[in-house]
Amino acid sequence: MRIWFIGAYGIVSTTAMAGGKLIEQGRIDTTGLVSSLPQFEGIEKYAPLNFEFGGHEVRKADNAYVAALQHWEQNRHFEKEHLEEVRSELEQIRASRGTAINCGSGVQALGELDILENEKKTLAEIVEQLEKDLKSFADDDTVVINSASTEPLLNYSEKYHGSLDGFEEMIENDVKEHASASILYAYVALKNRIPYGNFTPSAGSSIPALKELAIEKKVPHAGNDGKTGETLVKTTLAPMFAYRNLKVLGWMSYNILGDLDGLVLSHRENKESKVISKDKVLEKIYGYSPFSITQIEYFPSLVDNKTAFDFIHFQGFMGTQMKFYFIWDAIDAIVAAPLTIDIARFLLFAKKKGLYGVIKEMGFFFKSPMDTNNVNTHSQFVELVEWFRENI
Amino acid sequence: MRIWFIGAYGIVSTTAMAGGKLIEQGRIDTTGLVSSLPQFEGIEKYAPLNFEFGGHEVRKADNAYVAALQHWEQNRHFEKEHLEEVRSELEQIRASRGTAINCGSGVQALGELDILENEKKTLAEIVEQLEKDLKSFADDDTVVINSASTEPLLNYSEKYHGSLDGFEEMIENDVKEHASASILYAYVALKNRIPYGNFTPSAGSSIPALKELAIEKKVPHAGNDGKTGETLVKTTLAPMFAYRNLKVLGWMSYNILGDLDGLVLSHRENKESKVISKDKVLEKIYGYSPFSITQIEYFPSLVDNKTAFDFIHFQGFMGTQMKFYFIWDAIDAIVAAPLTIDIARFLLFAKKKGLYGVIKEMGFFFKSPMDTNNVNTHSQFVELVEWFRENI
Amino acid sequence: MRIWFIGAYGIVSTTAMAGGKLIEQGRIDTTGLVSSLPQFEGIEKYAPLNFEFGGHEVRKADNAYVAALQHWEQNRHFEKEHLEEVRSELEQIRASRGTAINCGSGVQALGELDILENEKKTLAEIVEQLEKDLKSFADDDTVVINSASTEPLLNYSEKYHGSLDGFEEMIENDVKEHASASILYAYVALKNRIPYGNFTPSAGSSIPALKELAIEKKVPHAGNDGKTGETLVKTTLAPMFAYRNLKVLGWMSYNILGDLDGLVLSHRENKESKVISKDKVLEKIYGYSPFSITQIEYFPSLVDNKTAFDFIHFQGFMGTQMKFYFIWDAIDAIVAAPLTIDIARFLLFAKKKGLYGVIKEMGFFFKSPMDTNNVNTHSQFVELVEWFRENI
Amino acid sequence: MRIWFIGAYGIVSTTAMAGGKLIEQGRIDTTGLVSSLPQFEGIEKYAPLNFEFGGHEVRKADNAYVAALQHWEQNRHFEKEHLEEVRSELEQIRASRGTAINCGSGVQALGELDILENEKKTLAEIVEQLEKDLKSFADDDTVVINSASTEPLLNYSEKYHGSLDGFEEMIENDVKEHASASILYAYVALKNRIPYGNFTPSAGSSIPALKELAIEKKVPHAGNDGKTGETLVKTTLAPMFAYRNLKVLGWMSYNILGDLDGLVLSHRENKESKVISKDKVLEKIYGYSPFSITQIEYFPSLVDNKTAFDFIHFQGFMGTQMKFYFIWDAIDAIVAAPLTIDIARFLLFAKKKGLYGVIKEMGFFFKSPMDTNNVNTHSQFVELVEWFRENI
Repeated sequence: MRIWFIGAYGIVSTTAMAGGKLIEQGRIDTTGLVSSLPQFEGIEKYAPLNFEFGGHEVRKADNAYVAALQHWEQNRHFEKEHLEEVRSELEQIRASRGTAINCGSGVQALGELDILENEKKTLAEIVEQLEKDLKSFADDDTVVINSASTEPLLNYSEKYHGSLDGFEEMIENDVKEHASASILYAYVALKNRIPYGNFTPSAGSSIPALKELAIEKKVPHAGNDGKTGETLVKTTLAPMFAYRNLKVLGWMSYNILGDLDGLVLSHRENKESKVISKDKVLEKIYGYSPFSITQIEYFPSLVDNKTAFDFIHFQGFMGTQMKFYFIWDAIDAIVAAPLTIDIARFLLFAKKKGLYGVIKEMGFFFKSPMDTNNVNTHSQFVELVEWFRENI
Repeated sequence: MRIWFIGAYGIVSTTAMAGGKLIEQGRIDTTGLVSSLPQFEGIEKYAPLNFEFGGHEVRKADNAYVAALQHWEQNRHFEKEHLEEVRSELEQIRASRGTAINCGSGVQALGELDILENEKKTLAEIVEQLEKDLKSFADDDTVVINSASTEPLLNYSEKYHGSLDGFEEMIENDVKEHASASILYAYVALKNRIPYGNFTPSAGSSIPALKELAIEKKVPHAGNDGKTGETLVKTTLAPMFAYRNLKVLGWMSYNILGDLDGLVLSHRENKESKVISKDKVLEKIYGYSPFSITQIEYFPSLVDNKTAFDFIHFQGFMGTQMKFYFIWDAIDAIVAAPLTIDIARFLLFAKKKGLYGVIKEMGFFFKSPMDTNNVNTHSQFVELVEWFRENI
Repeated sequence: MRIWFIGAYGIVSTTAMAGGKLIEQGRIDTTGLVSSLPQFEGIEKYAPLNFEFGGHEVRKADNAYVAALQHWEQNRHFEKEHLEEVRSELEQIRASRGTAINCGSGVQALGELDILENEKKTLAEIVEQLEKDLKSFADDDTVVINSASTEPLLNYSEKYHGSLDGFEEMIENDVKEHASASILYAYVALKNRIPYGNFTPSAGSSIPALKELAIEKKVPHAGNDGKTGETLVKTTLAPMFAYRNLKVLGWMSYNILGDLDGLVLSHRENKESKVISKDKVLEKIYGYSPFSITQIEYFPSLVDNKTAFDFIHFQGFMGTQMKFYFIWDAIDAIVAAPLTIDIARFLLFAKKKGLYGVIKEMGFFFKSPMDTNNVNTHSQFVELVEWFRENI
Repeated sequence: MRIWFIGAYGIVSTTAMAGGKLIEQGRIDTTGLVSSLPQFEGIEKYAPLNFEFGGHEVRKADNAYVAALQHWEQNRHFEKEHLEEVRSELEQIRASRGTAINCGSGVQALGELDILENEKKTLAEIVEQLEKDLKSFADDDTVVINSASTEPLLNYSEKYHGSLDGFEEMIENDVKEHASASILYAYVALKNRIPYGNFTPSAGSSIPALKELAIEKKVPHAGNDGKTGETLVKTTLAPMFAYRNLKVLGWMSYNILGDLDGLVLSHRENKESKVISKDKVLEKIYGYSPFSITQIEYFPSLVDNKTAFDFIHFQGFMGTQMKFYFIWDAIDAIVAAPLTIDIARFLLFAKKKGLYGVIKEMGFFFKSPMDTNNVNTHSQFVELVEWFRENI
């Protein structure tokens, strides 16, 4: 199958590319790949474990190997040998120039950008170019995954985002202040009947206009925001307190990280959209809103070793207060990368089975799953397994 | 309803008694009570929230208030006012003299014991006395809950424990070396059609002889070993690693506590049965046995503030190793007490609905649930809810 | 001896009052009191363990018992019996109406204030009243301790704060925008030859004008900001990395608390002065500035149970990176209260020994000790002991 | 200078060898080396940073590079490039066959041993061979460091260990049951006027007989048991509670590790000597013995990533109990290796300055420093600096 990454030279994408090729070559096992669990037997027929990769990117780098090596040098997030084993394959992956329109000041931290806007293109011209790039790569077995840096909150407009007609009017009239990179990419994918998975909290395909497009084109999509670290643990643990009728008095979530994502997030406007996507899960699990703190701070020496400190203050029988602490010490790209492959596989499976629109049963993979209030990791897994079994 | 506690003067039982009366009087809310969740609406009809308490005990104390006060003075585990509010009710609860037969050297730590064996009674005489005590208290709405200290591993005998006939032969012939307090109590309860819940890891009703008796008498029972602290968290979290296809390289569970339970557990022979009941859950969840350490140590100043330190070493995509730590800082009696009431309520509900034998759908409450391999807290909760809804 | 507290009805002051009286009556031991260590034998002669308490306050409450009870009801920070044992003594302590001039919006969170400014008094009139109150209480054995809420950063003016003449001109000319409660209190104390200890990060006696006054009046003073929790641990641990030539790559300090202090700190302008006082210690210990995060957030259910989460990322031999985590789970008032008594005792000792100006050897008690760069807890303790021994 | 390692192919020794050569070549900086701190300026003249390495070993390996590579493959404890940079230097280091006499069953875990005992040598013959090996390497600037696996507690005999005469009688008469590898090695070193540093808890030079020998031969020695991890933190933090007059109610120290040291320690008899060396520090710091737990368990997947979990329960003012937790997540060899070089350098400095016998001012480096009760890390550092300055 083919995966087209938005943010192709990022650490998540390059790790997925390397890992995907290593699995294809039998050099590593499938640890970390949800879609390879026995519960999903049969998926290979629809989305086999061999891969072609491409994508859009705004950073300058010669090819995916060069980008991967840069990430590796900062992170040592896997064995160096593995990178060398797939060096030639990664060297052949050259991303197309993308757009960073309204991606905020954070993305500037990535260095000098190589973007379509630099050529003063109109929205219509940008879309046309993105489409041309994607079509030159895509076949019937292609999925687009957005793993680019988090954008600031979309400057939402009912007129331009509320319907497909409005959206296309926005493009036609070059209304740049209401556009953003992620919605343009999603538009291009869905318009071309290519499933789209939004691994970031950016708007992507979540606006009404694009949901309408997905239905019209009968193409599946899923998102938003890969559930990789602290939120994964939170949505696994939080139900325990509910099951036992324990009252959560407060939940502190403090995340530190030092990679480009951290740098982007440390810029206020981009941070906002990340924090918001994390706050709602407790409310959905408990039915009430416990006091909560969710913070993400930049801590350079950790690079991609995203570390979370959570503290839960809870009340039990007879009013007695008790405490729970956890520390999550993981490499974000290592947790994230296999999920991008999983999302691509399940979306391709959905497409081949004739399913379309938001695949809400894929909520297991996301912090802010679209069109569902189920954020309980366990229920999400059960839902994913049942959906798969019903459709296989 | 009526609850007969084995170990009536222990901290779990006295906390349940105080809390039960406080709820009955509307002085505290039902936080901590699983059976009061909206999912179990309708249970009040079968097991209303008003209580009479009695029980067997081997420690000397004038009444449940005196015993509760002793625990309170060491633990301050709830507001003193609460204890005073139900003082007169607790003062009226006077436990009957119980048995500590083959309860190991640990139970000696409780001080001078006031037990039936002191009178050199035979097993038959002990059973007769226990039965007399219980019958003088019990009505149709009575449940027996064993919350006594952990016994050493039962000296299992196929002859005496493998069938009801053998069991009764053991009693008749006074074969003391194969008896233990918990199996005698369970025998007496089930024989009299009183549901029996085993909140401890002791053998209780789990031997074939007593399972046979429960079927014969058409009485429900459940156990073993209340899932109150570290194992609760472990069985909630462990599935997360499985769902994400992450490989657990090692799981360390280190528990410290300073109460009588800790004292009893610190005596080797009793410790053994506790450690064994904790080891199996990871294997059941993963299908493989990760390296694991489970230790329980006595730490006097914590008294009943059982504290657990867990460390999980796991492997993700491309072989990269990552870490997770948690600290559970809770008051064991506060977590345990409401569960004893829950177990009693669900067993009474089962009895009234004509259900009998092991109620394996009540596994949610236990570390070592009988007759099921489901130890996943989430699945157990779903199972409990579905069972309740099917039978209500 | 007599202690006059600024912020007399706060949790720190009322806890110190209760504890002080309990020690005087022999009802509790001296755990927590540094000045009662064997190293300080002989101090009793100069600052015996019997106490009269008074103070200024801006909150409304009938007396110190009422205020203490309010704190107790929210915090249960010690045994209720202890409070009742000294009830009559605390009921006799009635604070005088104080000032909250330029104390920021945070202090408004304390509710309706009963302050001298309400009567539209000039600075001179305020000072006159404060002086009148203090003189009606003070004898030769009196010390003033500021344990009021943190003020915003002083609007520093070289003209008005740089010299005593300028300071008195500010008062005379009623230049309110450059005044703040803590500097007025400190002025009144020092002017009357009463030692002044600044337990808060507010300016207090740290401005040149007041240092000049202390020298002129030959009165000792000390500050700033009681070293009670996370900074105590940090300044104890940080030297270890220096001694072992380990390089600190980053140090995260995340504090949560839910008391009035937390409420005040959560107001930006007040927060600023707290955060600044914490940042400098690492630089002083290491000689370089490791990347660091220091945050204080409001977490209501913890009330005064200030909890700190620290993470230290460090580099060792051959460049290898390692990690250290700690959690400090303590009751702030319990750690702070005895230190206010210690500071009062050592200041009184200093006065009686003819020492005056900043007592920099008392840096052990402060986060931002005046006139010294020694922030290493160990060296500070050694320095305090040596200073005491030289002067006894 | 020259360092002769007992346990030359162990992870500590090979890491020290690699790091030493890298420093000599200017490829890494001196992070982790205490002796390179500015406080010890001038030591270079006596113990310059260039090294020749040799040693005794009981494991089979072709040379130090091969051994180092094995450790690296299991631990990845530093950058692979570093190992390659000094490959040829390490390949030239070939350890001599050592002795494992009375080293317990744990050492068998190292695999088939290549030891002098295999040839049925007498003690005298073993000593003669060890001496021959050492003398063929040593010059005037040589130090012996014992970094071999922990031995079981020495079967102490006043007759054979209490005096030098007795010791030599033991050798002469081949009284093997009272010998152990570490005391034979120490004997050989001291007898030849080569300073001896005991980085392990094994007896080494700590018996009266060998202290006598060191005095007689005027040679310095130091030990025991390198203070590398949890004990380092403990002895840094514990004084804080003492300084603040806080009462420690209990201190839990739980260590997990998965290297050969862990394997050896998991064998009961060897474990005993390690646990004992850790228990005494709290008593020395507090003057009383708080309840304490010190455990070391084998956790294979961590290999040399020794991780410690400590919990301190303490009591403050007015009897209130509070809590402190820490997690130390470090690579033992990385923390230990530079200390072996430091010890060698300071011992050589001592020798050149004419100092001999136990250098008790080097207690900073040890868990169980000989001939001193100072275990406070801060005081030890101050003592080391002062000793150095007095003698330079």
